[in-house]
Amino acid sequence: MKLYNDRNAPNPRRVRIFIAEKGLQIPTIDIDVMKEEHRTEAFTAINPLQKVPVLQLDDGTAIAETVAICRYLEETHPDPVLMGKGTIDRAKVEMWQRHVEFHLLYPVAHCLRHLHPRLAVLEKPQVAEWGEANRDKALDAVRWLDRELATRAFIAGDDFTIADITALCAVDFARFARIDIPEEVTQFKRWYTDVSSRASAAA
Amino acid sequence: MKLYNDRNAPNPRRVRIFIAEKGLQIPTIDIDVMKEEHRTEAFTAINPLQKVPVLQLDDGTAIAETVAICRYLEETHPDPVLMGKGTIDRAKVEMWQRHVEFHLLYPVAHCLRHLHPRLAVLEKPQVAEWGEANRDKALDAVRWLDRELATRAFIAGDDFTIADITALCAVDFARFARIDIPEEVTQFKRWYTDVSSRASAAA
Repeated sequence: MKLYNDRNAPNPRRVRIFIAEKGLQIPTIDIDVMKEEHRTEAFTAINPLQKVPVLQLDDGTAIAETVAICRYLEETHPDPVLMGKGTIDRAKVEMWQRHVEFHLLYPVAHCLRHLHPRLAVLEKPQVAEWGEANRDKALDAVRWLDRELATRAFIAGDDFTIADITALCAVDFARFARIDIPEEVTQFKRWYTDVSSRASAAA
Repeated sequence: MKLYNDRNAPNPRRVRIFIAEKGLQIPTIDIDVMKEEHRTEAFTAINPLQKVPVLQLDDGTAIAETVAICRYLEETHPDPVLMGKGTIDRAKVEMWQRHVEFHLLYPVAHCLRHLHPRLAVLEKPQVAEWGEANRDKALDAVRWLDRELATRAFIAGDDFTIADITALCAVDFARFARIDIPEEVTQFKRWYTDVSSRASAAA
């Protein structure tokens, strides 16, 4: 088993943190997207969509999508549970993971991809007005999560889950997009301090 | 158990088709998004994000997200399987479902939301240039799926799955965005004829 990785992109980091939380060791092969290494013939044969991360199993099967990789690892290495215990909890964790993805991670990514000159190589066309609109959407999501986090330790409930991993990667990526987290979101900042001090955050 | 629904939006239809394929009967409550019924105080109490669909369980638990609802129903009503049989197959179905979502459904939705005058009430600000860019992204995805479908009956393999439901709802929604499916995608059209002739497509 090996993980095709990029050191700077948020989606591979989501998988690396997930792997670290599981206590697994999976060899990585770095694909530098900024150098367009994801567009080589060899990598396109592994993932025709030319995206990282990809988890390749020993039989050659390529799982070429962040959450699909996490689900595979959750089923094959269930301890510690990161995607919910029991049917209702699994649905709730999926809901929160996707909420965070749509309302925080994607706006951050769109803001960066549409406004940063170096990312013109990845995002064609860059639409600056759309990038700016997403800065506001990302900040709205931070304020919404601040309200939610007033009632619980982590995003999906009392346990650290994949939803927290998605949000952590979004927040750290937001710096590159020059999205400044406002002072007043004290619950959000308490949560951020907690999750970013876990050993897995270094992954 | 009841489903908060909108008759015209693609995400509630994904859940309705999933329910129909499972042979379930779940009462629906229509929330007309175009009339801003998702912004009432009563509905905001059920889903603070003001989105449909929401599946509300008999104990009041609200599962407020399309795929999270499907996963709950898959676990509680496993026959017929719509999200993969076995660990690797479940990862593959998740991968394909998300590929279709990101590369086909979202471009279609962005195209419509940013270009249709009536949707100015939902999408603020509308960015026409971004809407047009997504028309091209959606058509690229149709051509990519046409190549993939040359090797198999359905999007994730030999079985009809949630990935087909997402794609079917995207294609039917594309009409409203005036995205015309090109003539030459014969495998894609064969697949579309198959999935849209299933009884569940009327849901």
